[in-house]
Amino acid sequence: MISYGSSIDIVSMQEKASTLVEALPYLQKFAGRKVVVKVGGEVLKSEEMVENIARSLILLRSTGIQVVVCHGGGPQISEMSERLGLPPRYVNGNRVTCSQTRDVMVMTMLGTIAPALIGSINKVLPCCVGISGIDSNMISVVQADPELGYVGLVDRVKIEPIEQLLHSGYLPVITPIGIDSEGQLYNINGDTCAASLAKALGAEKLILLSNIEGIYESFPNKESLISEIDLPTLKKLKEQGLFSGGMLPKVNGICDALEGGVSSAHILDGRQPFSLLLEVFTTSGIGTMIFP
Amino acid sequence: MISYGSSIDIVSMQEKASTLVEALPYLQKFAGRKVVVKVGGEVLKSEEMVENIARSLILLRSTGIQVVVCHGGGPQISEMSERLGLPPRYVNGNRVTCSQTRDVMVMTMLGTIAPALIGSINKVLPCCVGISGIDSNMISVVQADPELGYVGLVDRVKIEPIEQLLHSGYLPVITPIGIDSEGQLYNINGDTCAASLAKALGAEKLILLSNIEGIYESFPNKESLISEIDLPTLKKLKEQGLFSGGMLPKVNGICDALEGGVSSAHILDGRQPFSLLLEVFTTSGIGTMIFP
Amino acid sequence: MISYGSSIDIVSMQEKASTLVEALPYLQKFAGRKVVVKVGGEVLKSEEMVENIARSLILLRSTGIQVVVCHGGGPQISEMSERLGLPPRYVNGNRVTCSQTRDVMVMTMLGTIAPALIGSINKVLPCCVGISGIDSNMISVVQADPELGYVGLVDRVKIEPIEQLLHSGYLPVITPIGIDSEGQLYNINGDTCAASLAKALGAEKLILLSNIEGIYESFPNKESLISEIDLPTLKKLKEQGLFSGGMLPKVNGICDALEGGVSSAHILDGRQPFSLLLEVFTTSGIGTMIFP
Amino acid sequence: MISYGSSIDIVSMQEKASTLVEALPYLQKFAGRKVVVKVGGEVLKSEEMVENIARSLILLRSTGIQVVVCHGGGPQISEMSERLGLPPRYVNGNRVTCSQTRDVMVMTMLGTIAPALIGSINKVLPCCVGISGIDSNMISVVQADPELGYVGLVDRVKIEPIEQLLHSGYLPVITPIGIDSEGQLYNINGDTCAASLAKALGAEKLILLSNIEGIYESFPNKESLISEIDLPTLKKLKEQGLFSGGMLPKVNGICDALEGGVSSAHILDGRQPFSLLLEVFTTSGIGTMIFP
Amino acid sequence: MISYGSSIDIVSMQEKASTLVEALPYLQKFAGRKVVVKVGGEVLKSEEMVENIARSLILLRSTGIQVVVCHGGGPQISEMSERLGLPPRYVNGNRVTCSQTRDVMVMTMLGTIAPALIGSINKVLPCCVGISGIDSNMISVVQADPELGYVGLVDRVKIEPIEQLLHSGYLPVITPIGIDSEGQLYNINGDTCAASLAKALGAEKLILLSNIEGIYESFPNKESLISEIDLPTLKKLKEQGLFSGGMLPKVNGICDALEGGVSSAHILDGRQPFSLLLEVFTTSGIGTMIFP
Amino acid sequence: MISYGSSIDIVSMQEKASTLVEALPYLQKFAGRKVVVKVGGEVLKSEEMVENIARSLILLRSTGIQVVVCHGGGPQISEMSERLGLPPRYVNGNRVTCSQTRDVMVMTMLGTIAPALIGSINKVLPCCVGISGIDSNMISVVQADPELGYVGLVDRVKIEPIEQLLHSGYLPVITPIGIDSEGQLYNINGDTCAASLAKALGAEKLILLSNIEGIYESFPNKESLISEIDLPTLKKLKEQGLFSGGMLPKVNGICDALEGGVSSAHILDGRQPFSLLLEVFTTSGIGTMIFP
Repeated sequence: MISYGSSIDIVSMQEKASTLVEALPYLQKFAGRKVVVKVGGEVLKSEEMVENIARSLILLRSTGIQVVVCHGGGPQISEMSERLGLPPRYVNGNRVTCSQTRDVMVMTMLGTIAPALIGSINKVLPCCVGISGIDSNMISVVQADPELGYVGLVDRVKIEPIEQLLHSGYLPVITPIGIDSEGQLYNINGDTCAASLAKALGAEKLILLSNIEGIYESFPNKESLISEIDLPTLKKLKEQGLFSGGMLPKVNGICDALEGGVSSAHILDGRQPFSLLLEVFTTSGIGTMIFP
Repeated sequence: MISYGSSIDIVSMQEKASTLVEALPYLQKFAGRKVVVKVGGEVLKSEEMVENIARSLILLRSTGIQVVVCHGGGPQISEMSERLGLPPRYVNGNRVTCSQTRDVMVMTMLGTIAPALIGSINKVLPCCVGISGIDSNMISVVQADPELGYVGLVDRVKIEPIEQLLHSGYLPVITPIGIDSEGQLYNINGDTCAASLAKALGAEKLILLSNIEGIYESFPNKESLISEIDLPTLKKLKEQGLFSGGMLPKVNGICDALEGGVSSAHILDGRQPFSLLLEVFTTSGIGTMIFP
Repeated sequence: MISYGSSIDIVSMQEKASTLVEALPYLQKFAGRKVVVKVGGEVLKSEEMVENIARSLILLRSTGIQVVVCHGGGPQISEMSERLGLPPRYVNGNRVTCSQTRDVMVMTMLGTIAPALIGSINKVLPCCVGISGIDSNMISVVQADPELGYVGLVDRVKIEPIEQLLHSGYLPVITPIGIDSEGQLYNINGDTCAASLAKALGAEKLILLSNIEGIYESFPNKESLISEIDLPTLKKLKEQGLFSGGMLPKVNGICDALEGGVSSAHILDGRQPFSLLLEVFTTSGIGTMIFP
Repeated sequence: MISYGSSIDIVSMQEKASTLVEALPYLQKFAGRKVVVKVGGEVLKSEEMVENIARSLILLRSTGIQVVVCHGGGPQISEMSERLGLPPRYVNGNRVTCSQTRDVMVMTMLGTIAPALIGSINKVLPCCVGISGIDSNMISVVQADPELGYVGLVDRVKIEPIEQLLHSGYLPVITPIGIDSEGQLYNINGDTCAASLAKALGAEKLILLSNIEGIYESFPNKESLISEIDLPTLKKLKEQGLFSGGMLPKVNGICDALEGGVSSAHILDGRQPFSLLLEVFTTSGIGTMIFP
Repeated sequence: MISYGSSIDIVSMQEKASTLVEALPYLQKFAGRKVVVKVGGEVLKSEEMVENIARSLILLRSTGIQVVVCHGGGPQISEMSERLGLPPRYVNGNRVTCSQTRDVMVMTMLGTIAPALIGSINKVLPCCVGISGIDSNMISVVQADPELGYVGLVDRVKIEPIEQLLHSGYLPVITPIGIDSEGQLYNINGDTCAASLAKALGAEKLILLSNIEGIYESFPNKESLISEIDLPTLKKLKEQGLFSGGMLPKVNGICDALEGGVSSAHILDGRQPFSLLLEVFTTSGIGTMIFP
Repeated sequence: MISYGSSIDIVSMQEKASTLVEALPYLQKFAGRKVVVKVGGEVLKSEEMVENIARSLILLRSTGIQVVVCHGGGPQISEMSERLGLPPRYVNGNRVTCSQTRDVMVMTMLGTIAPALIGSINKVLPCCVGISGIDSNMISVVQADPELGYVGLVDRVKIEPIEQLLHSGYLPVITPIGIDSEGQLYNINGDTCAASLAKALGAEKLILLSNIEGIYESFPNKESLISEIDLPTLKKLKEQGLFSGGMLPKVNGICDALEGGVSSAHILDGRQPFSLLLEVFTTSGIGTMIFP
């Protein structure tokens, strides 16, 4: 067998070489470090996006990064609640999680969303194991507000189960459910949970993958997409009331994680293939990076 | 501070001493060995029974036995299917698991039953972690019969995740869901699954806790309750058509486990408090013991 | 082979279950902890008692407790001295240990008593190894009183030889002989020696097995047998002159051990079968317990 | 601090992503594997090339590959021989290595070339340690031909010193000098030596970096540059007399290495920056690859 | 402070150097190997000899040799028997060990001889621990001859206790007492016991220290002292009836040890200071060496 | 086979025994400790001396001492410089090391002297590996004096490479070449370098082997050869101007090493066979010993 190399494209080769020279130092920098990736509920609705993310997660992990995934599931929970005849209830404009809704949330998160995501990752490489705050009472919560019912604030994260799964070579997927001192289960916001995990694990990076490109200073002006911002500036924008809705827990979680020692936080567009890899292995990165 | 021992009851003391002298040798015999306990769906319906079982499991584990739990959930799945408007369908008298029913089964097992059992055990000691055949593709199945839909036969058990949880000091609770080579999820009978786990793990004992006292040679004659039976005799009874309904997978699983090297199998009444302890730590045992 | 369980005694089963539920938590509490058991010379005279104690020691050890035994031998030494024509000598009412008596003591303890006790334990399980304060100069002593001759007070215990025997899975039997800085051998009171060992080893319990039921506040009134007493109260009784004879070194050793960090001390009747097990594995215990 | 991401080049990003997706699987494939790189004497004459190669070697090593370097030095030896007044001598057209020439060879290789290469690598990262076949009698040789003097054929490679340097995190540079059973030093061809090292170390790859682009089937026809060839075809070309001069030991070494279990061998142009990286981390590779 | 070296004796220095050059290779040869030294009862009677032997043993051990000591005690036992009024009894000219004599033997060996020897060694360095065949049932015996009573033949040596003492850095002194399957204690000849230990431990050397210079071919002709003899020749001399009395068990033990894999056996004069060191660290050795 | 020991020389035996008794305690004292031996350039010129030293080094190492060798090479460098037409140049009477001379020094040290010494040691036992200050930038230097060119003062020694070679069982030979922060190579005086190594390694002894018998208080008066001197007295002699030429760096290095924690320093006559052994293993030692 013999083949000839007539068609080598020198320019393309040099570009590849330069991408490699750019990427390889990050390999060593991040090898053995932990990265917490939150995958949002909206992104999980598209099978194609989930496949892309699954491949990116496995590639990330193959470089020696200790990847921990936390998932959301808002849209799916709303759908199942409706199907089971549980209309949303509100107090002062805030949605209330009654015990029945909480049971539906737990059931949907652990029984539908988590197995689907775990299954997708395991199709690429069978290394993914799912656990939740219930396992070994891993995530302790306190009630956020009695009027809102079973909505929990993370009080303490026991990282041993995650550390041991990582140590045994597994990619852990964490479902954001907490448990209070009485053994009651609580809903936790996925972004908040991911931030608490990143802080507790001493992660290098917290990456929030959702269906937005990053933080816009004046949405929807494309030019105002922020590529880098430091924590004090982000806090100033927050005080100016720039953030609302689902952006608020993201920003709060990022502030919490960075103040807790995480080196950088990132809001990336999960719809863009391989955005995870570009963020981690290129100098310019992608989406919005927040640093301390 | 001083108190006097006037009220010592010598007889009771001697009985205690004799129970201890009887029990302690089993401690050494079983320390470090694995015991797989299947907790049936009917038993799981009573909160009080679950609490008792949870305490027994933690006491067993405290003696150095490596306890692995597998759970059932038939009644709960039927209830949720009905609630979601999925009436049972039959082919030649056998129930069919269509993909919708399978989804409800997965959702109920992972999202309702497993968290409830894990929560009960963790209330006694927070050491319990739940995983299923989906995690790390742990339990591979093949389809039992195309006409029955998503009903799986265990093909291979990858014991590493269970071994690593045990090694890290956790009590693993396994939900009997399998995955085929395409990544499709399947229902597995809980008794069969427990037997496969016991065989794959090289367990010392397989214990099936349900709402029956053991095997009756001629039910409901109380005198005919079998306390000990060997495998050849059990097989003879099976050939004579003694077993039917839910007893059949129990007996088949037990045969499979004993032939695969498990030292003994037990059918115990989960409604009797501490039946687990009496089985393991007394010479006469309780329920029906089957040995090779 | 088949047998039927007609004769199960539910009440007895429940009592066994409750003894197990009572005992198992102690297993975990004491597993890996050290317990020093002094076996008195009077108890050693009865072959039957020694057999019972040997079985209890092996059962205790089988639960993961690190058992260390220290033995006495007063009656046996007196007998041999007489046989060799060495009449006891006294100074101010205290017995004097001249060098010849010391040689007889060493010879009897190491050459007759220790091998008999070791042999009895090894008949149950061949795991027992005997050493004395001479080995590796393990127990350094200073002379108690020049007038009393070769009677030593423990100065320092080098625990390495005991730790290494335990680590290798042996049950060490320690003969209470000490060595001074000149290499001279000395007699040490067995209770005192056991207490020094318990302190040096950081033992959980010090158990003195002899031919008495415990401490009586007003002997021989059976009602006055103390079941529990704390250290300050014991010291008060001692100051009131309650203790004399062989009870004095027991009480002094117990005070020393408890002040040195041992969690509890016990005076048990070695003539009662399995008193050791009842003490360790029941809530009410047996004999007299002294705690700090 | 805030910056905006207006200038992101989507096409370039996608190309980078695709290079990463292409490269990352090789990372896992080669992590922990050994790669032997021979750096030819001609390449060593250019300081710029040496710098480029040093950076590539350190980047390779940063991915977890165990890099072992072997160097040449023909032109430098000739120069020093001349300077010391040792004109080359020939027998039947073959150059003779007399003991004086051998001394100059050893002196130049160990005293000039090796320290220069080691120094260049250590400027990038101080991790490089140089050893030769003399150290610990690592490379045993037999004389190739008495008429040619001190030219050795590798008889046995003791890999421990190299393994231990790798294990301690060093990048070993091996100077190709051998020692016979009498303790006499011998010149070894650098390509042959690299091949012997690759075989002995069970290397994944043998890479020969020199001043040629690869193997040409009919030099200098650019179209005839072979990109891939299997061992049988290479041997056929060799039998047809295609190879001569410095190409012959390269081809012989490659045959020897591949037959000894090395997975692939490569002839690369050391003058092209980062050719090492492109070879290892791209699917198409560069230069000529020979596989078994 | 300053001092001048005017008085260096060159000749003495060269002799010292040559002794060191002779001795050092044995250090490496024997480091980590086991040497079993039997110290005879006659030698133990002289305090000065015991001190010399103790120093030699500690020096031997300091070179990394794993020294195991076994002791005799015939004269001492006879003395104590007499003192306790137990006259020797004979059957067919062989001394009988009745149970009373056996008890005196055990008492004397464990209670008088062993502590004295251990004490002497510990005065040099406190590293010596004494055990006997009773400990952990280490030396199993069968009765030699029912008519002779409690005289045992070694059946099996459980080497773990000795290995563990060595591993923990102790110098074990073994008292030659055995135990039969009923738990009865037996007298074992010290030379035979040492040989069995050497064989079981895979010792490099068996050294018998007693009050003779070695084996004489025709005693008391000084010229006939054998310095080296191989096993076949020794056996021939034995068949010719050369050996009797205490020499017979020595020769039998040596034959047994050499056939069991011990590299050499030695009969040395324990009365000569440092004969142990001269045997181990000089080329010519001392006493009689027997090799396979 | 049989031989008789008629010719044993008791006196010689006793002398050997006494040498052993003298030497063995040093074995334990120095086992595992590090000893740095500098071998001077003059000594290296005699093949016979090198052979003797090689044997001594291997014998030393066989006792468990961690031997590290540093070599000189002054005469050899001068010879090669001359041969290459580089006449010595002086500034204010001090020899200048221009870059060409430095290159010749590096080439001669690494390419001629080190391989010869390593080869001689490996002939005795193939355990020797040579490294220099260049390897892993092990020895950092600063320029001593710009006018003197490439003459370096040791700034920092990175001991890891030496420790790892020792740990892997090799005898390291260190060539005294240093590297500055720019990557430039520098000549370092061999005695100074050996002293810096001894200090950095926490060596027990620094031994300078050269062609002198030790320090003379008034050379050449033989009576004035100093056998022992303490550091303060040595410094006083130095202040009095007693030392000049090659003796000055020796004395300075010794002062530096002793102040840095080395226990003793020695100047020995490398021409006397086995002076190394006599120094280490006899009480009186040889040559001049300097202690703190």
